[in-house]
Amino acid sequence: MAAFPAPIESLIEQLVRLPGIGRRGAERLVTYLLRVPSGQVQDLADALTQMKEEVRPCTVCGAWAGGELCSICADAHRSTERVCVIEQPVDVYAFEGSGAFDGRYHVLGGTISPLDGIGPDDLAVDALLRRIEPEGVAEVIVALSPTVQGDATAIYLSQLLGERGVEVTRIGLGVPLGANLGYADPGTLRLALEGRRKMDR
Amino acid sequence: MAAFPAPIESLIEQLVRLPGIGRRGAERLVTYLLRVPSGQVQDLADALTQMKEEVRPCTVCGAWAGGELCSICADAHRSTERVCVIEQPVDVYAFEGSGAFDGRYHVLGGTISPLDGIGPDDLAVDALLRRIEPEGVAEVIVALSPTVQGDATAIYLSQLLGERGVEVTRIGLGVPLGANLGYADPGTLRLALEGRRKMDR
Repeated sequence: MAAFPAPIESLIEQLVRLPGIGRRGAERLVTYLLRVPSGQVQDLADALTQMKEEVRPCTVCGAWAGGELCSICADAHRSTERVCVIEQPVDVYAFEGSGAFDGRYHVLGGTISPLDGIGPDDLAVDALLRRIEPEGVAEVIVALSPTVQGDATAIYLSQLLGERGVEVTRIGLGVPLGANLGYADPGTLRLALEGRRKMDR
Repeated sequence: MAAFPAPIESLIEQLVRLPGIGRRGAERLVTYLLRVPSGQVQDLADALTQMKEEVRPCTVCGAWAGGELCSICADAHRSTERVCVIEQPVDVYAFEGSGAFDGRYHVLGGTISPLDGIGPDDLAVDALLRRIEPEGVAEVIVALSPTVQGDATAIYLSQLLGERGVEVTRIGLGVPLGANLGYADPGTLRLALEGRRKMDR
């Protein structure tokens, strides 16, 4: 069977390393890229290099930034009273999309996971503590995954920050909007029951 | 809602232009690319540039080539007696995958389509005619899509090449291997009936 010319094979090898792209998808991308003007392919190559060179963690919160600070830490209008603790930089955009939060974020970089050898020192816990006083943080909202590791990390942060007089809350866990209760898993229903609230009258 | 840093947004814009990649897929790719070592992203960028610079149409058949000739036209062991006419360079790999053809290919670049303003002069028809004598082509196998345009192009080539004493055949059309007859469309079944062959005894 004829092999692709070497430069095509090299590109396919690079493409299949990306998430969600298999061999067939990579071949389809190559077929497309061979057809479009060179300028478009060069723009893509440049955008890749540039993004990797220019995007760095915000020096305050660890979210993606184009410079020293991310757009949220650089925005004087955002309240510093509440800080939302998230696992990954991309989580910022999920919460921003909800439009329900006007505070700042703090990227922890993961959750405490002794089995994987990840302790508090491997996460941005110290960086969070250093923000409390200068920014006047009154509440830390823990928005970590509802997993055993997320739970353990939430409890750890709650104790650590409670000692410093900071209120620690955790985002609500329960049935998502529009969900069909018949398909909700037992664990979610248990959390939803535990998190029930008295209705206003 | 916070926007991504500009370099991320630029890359997402480039990625969503690719087939099969939507906004969410592009964001997922970016999240992945921000996490891997710079070297891997640079390798991908370089592979893109290099492929676009180095891959060109084979000067004989029009298939993808790393140099003057594609690997098949450069292979003296491939018979020049039979030439398989295909629409796009990528079709080469489909036939090579079957292992059932030891001749050469000719990329037509499409099919005759008067409604789209595509006539024989817009396709590599002349280049095909120029190969007949020097290569001693005895049979041209038409492997174009079974569409109205593919049919018209096949008939056109058959007349043109018939005048020059070249036998023109068309690949078999019918029910694909492993297909469930109950799901075959009427057009395919009609072609399958027309293409029936006497069984050996």
